[in-house]
Amino acid sequence: MTNDYKQEVQTLLVRSKIGFLATQGEWGVETSMAPFALDHGMILLHLSTLAKHTANIENNPRIGLMVCTPETEGASPLALPRLSLQGEVSLVPEDRYPAAQAVYIQQIPDAEMLFSFADFRLFQFSASRIHWVGGFGKARNVPLDQWQKFTGDEV
Amino acid sequence: MTNDYKQEVQTLLVRSKIGFLATQGEWGVETSMAPFALDHGMILLHLSTLAKHTANIENNPRIGLMVCTPETEGASPLALPRLSLQGEVSLVPEDRYPAAQAVYIQQIPDAEMLFSFADFRLFQFSASRIHWVGGFGKARNVPLDQWQKFTGDEV
Repeated sequence: MTNDYKQEVQTLLVRSKIGFLATQGEWGVETSMAPFALDHGMILLHLSTLAKHTANIENNPRIGLMVCTPETEGASPLALPRLSLQGEVSLVPEDRYPAAQAVYIQQIPDAEMLFSFADFRLFQFSASRIHWVGGFGKARNVPLDQWQKFTGDEV
Repeated sequence: MTNDYKQEVQTLLVRSKIGFLATQGEWGVETSMAPFALDHGMILLHLSTLAKHTANIENNPRIGLMVCTPETEGASPLALPRLSLQGEVSLVPEDRYPAAQAVYIQQIPDAEMLFSFADFRLFQFSASRIHWVGGFGKARNVPLDQWQKFTGDEV
């Protein structure tokens, strides 16, 4: 089971370039979308300070993050493999910034120009809880040490 | 602008069969996925009482809901058209249940068998705030009367 499931989690992370954020907003919980990059277990998010989710994160850095296999014609919308993570967001520290920026641009090349915009910041999401749904009747928690192993490899 | 934007919102709602939920959980905000059907402005969600998001909704019915254009090869992950809604979830009332169930199954045929499962409930999400992002530099709030018009048509 572990090997298959590792491969399924990695496949999901390769197929999806975007994450869905749940943040605490002024009028309750909010959802938003942001591209993400994977940096050895950390999830990098490059967000504009003009966006509402960024203000929400500054008020409350504990967020939810979902990565879901993209919908395709013919695939059942009920059974798309997905990961639901909970954790905390912080600014990428200055000494890690150049390396993290390079990793982010490698995975999301379209974002390169945004790094010259004054309103963008590079954040890192560190997961504390991870739940994986692989399809019908296939779900489990992902222990954090396994997550590190799964995402430490090249995916 | 209004007509183009109406068509873009409708196209998005036709292309996406799944919504991303933000709910208030035990350890903070959580994201999850659920297929949805559109029923004249209402968004129908068919959820298992065994799922964590359903317990969260029962504790706090104010949720966030995102509908996002599915990722495809070649499309920029930065500019996918999407809707972010906030609102409240309630059980579909008994007198509306048969009609709502028929609408849901028409739009999500795979879900038909789930209606015979004892743990599933049909919920309706009523939006109070709707924000649309159409791509780079293209975003606006969707007034609720416009939302009604957009979703009252066959989409």
